[in-house]
Amino acid sequence: MTLPLAARVLTGDPRAVARAITLIENEDTDAAALIGALFPHTGRAYVIGVTGPPGAGKSTLVDRLIEQARAAGQTVGVIAVDPTSPFTGGAVLGDRVRMQQHATDAGVFVRSMATRGHLGGLARATSDVALVLDAAGKDVVIIETVGVGQDEVEIIRTADVSLVTLVPGTGDDVQAIKAGIMEIADVFVVNKADREGADRLVSSIESNLALHTYGADEWRPPIVKTVAIDGTGLPALGQVIERFRAHGAARHFDRRRARGESRLRELVAHRFMTRLEQQVLAEGELASWVERIATREVDPYTAAEALLARALERR
Amino acid sequence: MTLPLAARVLTGDPRAVARAITLIENEDTDAAALIGALFPHTGRAYVIGVTGPPGAGKSTLVDRLIEQARAAGQTVGVIAVDPTSPFTGGAVLGDRVRMQQHATDAGVFVRSMATRGHLGGLARATSDVALVLDAAGKDVVIIETVGVGQDEVEIIRTADVSLVTLVPGTGDDVQAIKAGIMEIADVFVVNKADREGADRLVSSIESNLALHTYGADEWRPPIVKTVAIDGTGLPALGQVIERFRAHGAARHFDRRRARGESRLRELVAHRFMTRLEQQVLAEGELASWVERIATREVDPYTAAEALLARALERR
Repeated sequence: MTLPLAARVLTGDPRAVARAITLIENEDTDAAALIGALFPHTGRAYVIGVTGPPGAGKSTLVDRLIEQARAAGQTVGVIAVDPTSPFTGGAVLGDRVRMQQHATDAGVFVRSMATRGHLGGLARATSDVALVLDAAGKDVVIIETVGVGQDEVEIIRTADVSLVTLVPGTGDDVQAIKAGIMEIADVFVVNKADREGADRLVSSIESNLALHTYGADEWRPPIVKTVAIDGTGLPALGQVIERFRAHGAARHFDRRRARGESRLRELVAHRFMTRLEQQVLAEGELASWVERIATREVDPYTAAEALLARALERR
Repeated sequence: MTLPLAARVLTGDPRAVARAITLIENEDTDAAALIGALFPHTGRAYVIGVTGPPGAGKSTLVDRLIEQARAAGQTVGVIAVDPTSPFTGGAVLGDRVRMQQHATDAGVFVRSMATRGHLGGLARATSDVALVLDAAGKDVVIIETVGVGQDEVEIIRTADVSLVTLVPGTGDDVQAIKAGIMEIADVFVVNKADREGADRLVSSIESNLALHTYGADEWRPPIVKTVAIDGTGLPALGQVIERFRAHGAARHFDRRRARGESRLRELVAHRFMTRLEQQVLAEGELASWVERIATREVDPYTAAEALLARALERR
């Protein structure tokens, strides 16, 4: 307890990790310093992203991946991202259940995060939490997120390997595939593959992949059929992930660099806005500009230029 | 042609409108001035947002809404937003078909927009395009978007009324509802309501709504059953939209103000980053920071602070 938080996180102390994550979630002013202290000790964990439409059995699949990693003697950190909604809570509940399940296992740390309204904020927070788990010595960090929206895409981009989970029989699988997740999938998991329509789903994914020509040494996302509930196909999935990890070794660094760049841009912009609103603008100044826009007295671009000028003026 | 573009847009000239939209899509430097010139002439159009999972029949529903508005003597502008994907093009195709269908009708303008990688950029562009259509004298502007991700939510927030379209039989409807679209729905449309499971879907939406307590004068999203393909339920939907418009009159202005505020923040941040990268930073300076982050030499927060300092330093 006398040790500073960062040092305690580095020892893997779960309470310290939990507290660090809370600081990040609350955008606490100490969070930046914490990440700064932990950052040199990160980059070792392998981050697995798992996404897909609701009801695809992602949670069960993640449980299997946890068991697989534990069986291999690896420690695991899990970040379950819930979409913002006063109507949800299901995922959080599932998360509690899962935490109980692994409560006795010090090698597994599970944390759920609720999305913020703030655009981009969630992706930033998620990657910071991944850094904390990485620094805490977790060998594998699994990020589980629902849906295939821009926000989920941003989150999954923070992973080293992205698993897109689909399930037969839900009418819009193929549509969902078309709706922008082909790009982010390193591996397709057709879960509940014992269901009718599994082969149809596989071939529809195949036909989508066929629309894209892959270079000789370019990774073509394989399709793995699983029944997570009874573990069917999990060894195969584990091997595919290992294969990707080996293949991606070179590409891996590029991906992390690209990730770092978009993260840096987002961070600078966020810092700038915070400074503008908290240190530059007078109380209600932003609101008055908004009011003038609402009444069509001034257009947003002119207002933006004026605010930018205020932020950059001397003194 | 001698008239400046803004003036020609104000006359409703479709070629001018198309050109204005292209300027916005390309983030052309003239776009800001254009919006500035058009802005005082905006705020008259009623913006209808239509979203929901792929395959919910949104395009057909939008076609019916177009017909309904035209029958009432109103002019219509449609913005069809496609998710980014080398694999898509379906929506663009559908859009072409629709354009042909209304090609002979000068009262209808249809334009599809592809999403950008740039987070938040699409919502900004969409609302600018809505302003152009508004300034061009369209009485109704319909924004159609696929999916229920953060990006779609941001886009739909730019609408005056949001229709969330769901369809029976796709297993994850209820899940999709839970996945964060309850908040943005002003009206639920259960399309393809002649399908089996329509009533089950309605009651599952009802039970979700029941989790939230609505104030006496608070709008409780109604559920309208439609079969867009044959027009069933469209008159009822039209009445519900009118009812919302009447009810929302007061709330309406608050919504536009809130929209204006988030838009202004996003715009200022975007302008700042553009200035930083194009006027402040030397060639490759950002890249070198990214490199140092990738090698764990510096953490993102420290780098962000350094870049912010560079942007704010004098001269």
